[in-house]
Amino acid sequence: MCQLLGMNCNTPTDIVFSFEGFRRRAGITDCHSDGFGIAFFEGKGVRVFRDDKPCSSSPIADCVKQYHIKSLNVIAHIRKATQGNVNLENTHPFMREIWGENWVFAHNGNLTTLPDLSDCRAQPIGTTDSEAAFCYMTEFLKRRYLRKPSEDEIFDAVYEVSQELSKLGTFNFILSNGQFMIAHCSTFLHYLTRKAPFGKAFRVDDDGFIDFNDYAKPGDKVTIISTQPLTKNEHWTKMAHGGFVMFKDGEKVREIVGVEQEIKDDGTLGNMKIA
Amino acid sequence: MCQLLGMNCNTPTDIVFSFEGFRRRAGITDCHSDGFGIAFFEGKGVRVFRDDKPCSSSPIADCVKQYHIKSLNVIAHIRKATQGNVNLENTHPFMREIWGENWVFAHNGNLTTLPDLSDCRAQPIGTTDSEAAFCYMTEFLKRRYLRKPSEDEIFDAVYEVSQELSKLGTFNFILSNGQFMIAHCSTFLHYLTRKAPFGKAFRVDDDGFIDFNDYAKPGDKVTIISTQPLTKNEHWTKMAHGGFVMFKDGEKVREIVGVEQEIKDDGTLGNMKIA
Repeated sequence: MCQLLGMNCNTPTDIVFSFEGFRRRAGITDCHSDGFGIAFFEGKGVRVFRDDKPCSSSPIADCVKQYHIKSLNVIAHIRKATQGNVNLENTHPFMREIWGENWVFAHNGNLTTLPDLSDCRAQPIGTTDSEAAFCYMTEFLKRRYLRKPSEDEIFDAVYEVSQELSKLGTFNFILSNGQFMIAHCSTFLHYLTRKAPFGKAFRVDDDGFIDFNDYAKPGDKVTIISTQPLTKNEHWTKMAHGGFVMFKDGEKVREIVGVEQEIKDDGTLGNMKIA
Repeated sequence: MCQLLGMNCNTPTDIVFSFEGFRRRAGITDCHSDGFGIAFFEGKGVRVFRDDKPCSSSPIADCVKQYHIKSLNVIAHIRKATQGNVNLENTHPFMREIWGENWVFAHNGNLTTLPDLSDCRAQPIGTTDSEAAFCYMTEFLKRRYLRKPSEDEIFDAVYEVSQELSKLGTFNFILSNGQFMIAHCSTFLHYLTRKAPFGKAFRVDDDGFIDFNDYAKPGDKVTIISTQPLTKNEHWTKMAHGGFVMFKDGEKVREIVGVEQEIKDDGTLGNMKIA
């Protein structure tokens, strides 16, 4: 399994406070040490940093910290390999062009059956189940719409293909085209939205803390999505199994609520808590 | 216009000696200051560094120098914008997945007519003629072959689509899938292959020099491709108009020789010197 981190905002925001806690889970506070990647949208362009070294000690991750890049949409991933060797082509997030936009995708979970890509143009470069799923999604979207449809149509189409792929295994993911961010939960995914009045936040993974009043302007809205909460004093919303959310300009704009379900110790699904 | 730099080798090689001369052309010894990008293949994966700042002074370019990444295939580009604003999505090299491989493309020139992409799935993300041409090439290759054909078939297909795109304007480019490197010349492109016996090289753009005997092993073969020669004491082969070359493991493996043609002061083509 792996861990996911996403950020969607209405003003370019520095993710370093969250990322510095998150990266400790790659070898210090947890064991997701098989490479990492982080993608920052900048206009329609994307800056990607990735390494097959553990994120907690990678010089490339130090470089990310150093530059304090501000972005409206960021997706990061620390890997604990289930399928595919530890190498650069197997590090998330994956990126493909869809409808003249960069689409960025990161996955946490394990698909026990791979989707059928035999007649697909989109093909995985590495050997992960995650990239195979993203290729299937890319092909699905491009076949349904030759040119970019409305955001509501995108929401519905991504939900439909996510339902299909969820049948193949555990499928938590974060996806962005630089304008919106979609999150889908099979087992573990949490989010929170920071807006005025701002307060302090204390990190889970070390003693780091921040007072957002020192940085934020009154109208700022910043949503953070993470496999497990990154701060200990804020209210994180836990997504349920099958939950599917779209964020834009830092706020939730559409949602399909999931169902509460037992998660077994190995991270797989048990019985539904609400039928 | 812009300038191109490519490297294809039979052993992972550090491009810093060449890159440090090349990047001075982005603001110091020449005026290609509208952003830069450099892509390093690492297995099937690619590490890309890009910035909309001049390469000569970009902190991202300093980062490239610092890490001394070794690679078999590298493509770099310094931009002097002709079409498209100066921003991240318009910086070369461009990258697309073709047949389950990363394909990386950088262009120097100006297409006065854009290729027709109206029924293409591959669409440009930015607004350059270069990315439009690469999308057209991607679509051409994927339509002709659903799965990866032989290298000879790839050579022939890329040549055919390059001939078509060359009719639209000046079309110097370097292209790689991480296994081979293809170079096409409309106006300016030079290359050399370094192999034993190795000697010294003195850079054109500053006082930098290197003795390759201090770094290379007897069997090493390294080809460097550049818009203009990067060293003053080595023999660079000047490609002619329409010249098309494939390099693999540091050596030329296939070639279509171009024709000598006058280049006017504005970089466009004049009369053929050899009919």
